[in-house]
Amino acid sequence: MRHLRFLSALAREADTKIVLLVLDGVGDVRTAAQPQSALDLATTPNLDALAVAGALGRLTPILPGVTPGSGPGHLGLFGYDASEPDFDIGRGVLEALGLGLDFGPEALTARGNFATADDDGNLTDRRAGRIPTEECRRLCAKLDDAVDRVEGVTVQVEPGESHRFVLILRGEGLSAELTDTDPQQLGVRPLPVAAASLNGEATAARVAAVIERLHKVLADEPRANRVLMRGFSKLPDIPQLGDLYRMRFGAFAGYPLYRGVAAACGMEVVECGKHLDEVVDAVRPRWQDFDFFFLHVKQTDAAGEDGNLRAKADVVEEVDRHLPGLLALEPDVLAVTGDHSTPALMKAHSWHPIPLLMRGPLVFVDDTTAFDEGQAVRGHLGLLRSRELMGMLLAHGDRLAKFGA
Amino acid sequence: MRHLRFLSALAREADTKIVLLVLDGVGDVRTAAQPQSALDLATTPNLDALAVAGALGRLTPILPGVTPGSGPGHLGLFGYDASEPDFDIGRGVLEALGLGLDFGPEALTARGNFATADDDGNLTDRRAGRIPTEECRRLCAKLDDAVDRVEGVTVQVEPGESHRFVLILRGEGLSAELTDTDPQQLGVRPLPVAAASLNGEATAARVAAVIERLHKVLADEPRANRVLMRGFSKLPDIPQLGDLYRMRFGAFAGYPLYRGVAAACGMEVVECGKHLDEVVDAVRPRWQDFDFFFLHVKQTDAAGEDGNLRAKADVVEEVDRHLPGLLALEPDVLAVTGDHSTPALMKAHSWHPIPLLMRGPLVFVDDTTAFDEGQAVRGHLGLLRSRELMGMLLAHGDRLAKFGA
Repeated sequence: MRHLRFLSALAREADTKIVLLVLDGVGDVRTAAQPQSALDLATTPNLDALAVAGALGRLTPILPGVTPGSGPGHLGLFGYDASEPDFDIGRGVLEALGLGLDFGPEALTARGNFATADDDGNLTDRRAGRIPTEECRRLCAKLDDAVDRVEGVTVQVEPGESHRFVLILRGEGLSAELTDTDPQQLGVRPLPVAAASLNGEATAARVAAVIERLHKVLADEPRANRVLMRGFSKLPDIPQLGDLYRMRFGAFAGYPLYRGVAAACGMEVVECGKHLDEVVDAVRPRWQDFDFFFLHVKQTDAAGEDGNLRAKADVVEEVDRHLPGLLALEPDVLAVTGDHSTPALMKAHSWHPIPLLMRGPLVFVDDTTAFDEGQAVRGHLGLLRSRELMGMLLAHGDRLAKFGA
Repeated sequence: MRHLRFLSALAREADTKIVLLVLDGVGDVRTAAQPQSALDLATTPNLDALAVAGALGRLTPILPGVTPGSGPGHLGLFGYDASEPDFDIGRGVLEALGLGLDFGPEALTARGNFATADDDGNLTDRRAGRIPTEECRRLCAKLDDAVDRVEGVTVQVEPGESHRFVLILRGEGLSAELTDTDPQQLGVRPLPVAAASLNGEATAARVAAVIERLHKVLADEPRANRVLMRGFSKLPDIPQLGDLYRMRFGAFAGYPLYRGVAAACGMEVVECGKHLDEVVDAVRPRWQDFDFFFLHVKQTDAAGEDGNLRAKADVVEEVDRHLPGLLALEPDVLAVTGDHSTPALMKAHSWHPIPLLMRGPLVFVDDTTAFDEGQAVRGHLGLLRSRELMGMLLAHGDRLAKFGA
């Protein structure tokens, strides 16, 4: 928090545009089993030209060796020390924010799955056959109509994609110190909601009553006759980016989770598609509305999670092709990086530092000639923690005053 | 402590073996006066092959510019922030642990030298002619028999090597806030034990009485007629490695101090010789008993302290020859580094970053081709604090869960 306050105190306004392009999970490895990273494999003339004209460096997401989830990974990129408990954003909150829901700091949120149980109440499908989104909407409307208020708790049920929904509860003194009801296995009953600490005891009983009522309404459903709840949480009190840095922040991300993190940090979330050309199409008409643009491309991570190195390289090449459209907007500062590495070899997020590329009139032009992990080791930007990137972006955008006389 | 707790909360079990080979004081310098480091001078085909197959980096022991003693140097390698007062391990405790003594957190320990004083009580030899270890054992037994309890303080005297011994005192309310009695010069009397703070005042008088009694028992000795005490200390409350990281830690070190630090951190200390082949011979039969192996080679530091660059390079070459024996055990993760630099040019420990070598299936294969300080600058592992190494070892050993969703 100290780092944040320090930087915030130096922030000043300027007539500059900063673009942070996040290629989710773009970092990769070179090992005996996978001699090339996705960036090595990809042909990227535009990214390479940026490396020639700018500088490379690397980001350690949280701490050396620590693999972040997407939430902490992005919090770091937005300048927060995600290892501080103050900045812990629960899954319920992320999901609700990602759906664009506006709820206050008092609301208790949770992610829900519709699920199927047999006549004995034991789970036979934790996702209710992955029902279509349309069906999910019908079920949520049914619940929302039938259940209004239980034991002083107001109930709101909002549909997500497929079998997913969000539960928003409002009432006096609701605590988020609750355990999940998803047993993470079949052949057993959903777990009762319980208190994760003393603070949660009174709330647990009330939420259990809510869930019981939801189950009654769903009793006649052939598939979606249960709900499984996870990630009970309330909006954390995160210092808002606009207040911290005196800029207007716009988030352009095609997936709910990233929109959720951005919204929790105070960015305005703008609807957009999932490919960079669509993202840039959404940015273009809003270019005058923001000073800082967070652009998110998910498919690098998805290909990494699939273990498909070639597909990951293809996504990078697609990004590279659409880069001129972004450059045509003439951002003063452009940074390209990721929230974490997702080596195709590992089919998972990892701790490996993420290559970082920056271009701007005051970026030291180093000797790097291509955007890849190997060259990034010898880039002028060095090895930073992700949360330190914000200071560099502000500085290169002429948005930080001198510290001290 | 926060870093430690954060990492600990992510630690998970895995079926992997991690080896940390510490070449004490291996780091060295290149200067006008000494154009090659010991690693430059040494011919090390096996270490170089590891560099080719793995990655290099560097460790800053405590803070840039800070030269650590062996205790803090190793605490850093074991993941602790040695600059925190909580982790201050006194010399008495280190010596006692190094001798394999089992004493509780209540015992007050100190290192002792047998010394010689003339008829006026002035010191003529601070090491009593470096008496043989056999003689030391006789003297300690004599003291231990003759002195049992003084002013409510139970007295235990344990022999070390040559003129060294350890004093262990037990009793109500003993404080470690005491000054040394070794005046560090000849021709003067031993210093009286004094309180280093208000807390130590009551204890100082009682310990002074103990020492007076010891001197009475030694009065008829021709050489060892005095004791000089240093490093009064009690076992600090250090979070134990096994609890922190859910691994079984084995320490293989030939010298008491390193065994002492390892034991204070919760490692099981295994008897072994002082050369790497002997150390590996001790590791081999215990390979199934531990998950993390701390292996210590002292002679690099000793040669550095002697200012003998060639001897230091010879030790490195000897280590290199015995490396295949270690590799034959097939550790999943192998790290080779030092606890600090001991440049031959300086004949002393220094603050210079220490080269780090890591090999494992998920180690990013960088462009380095030899294990030396110069190449380490451009290694993929970058410049870490020593205390950050533990997270990297755990991560590469698949022993850290993802942080956040």
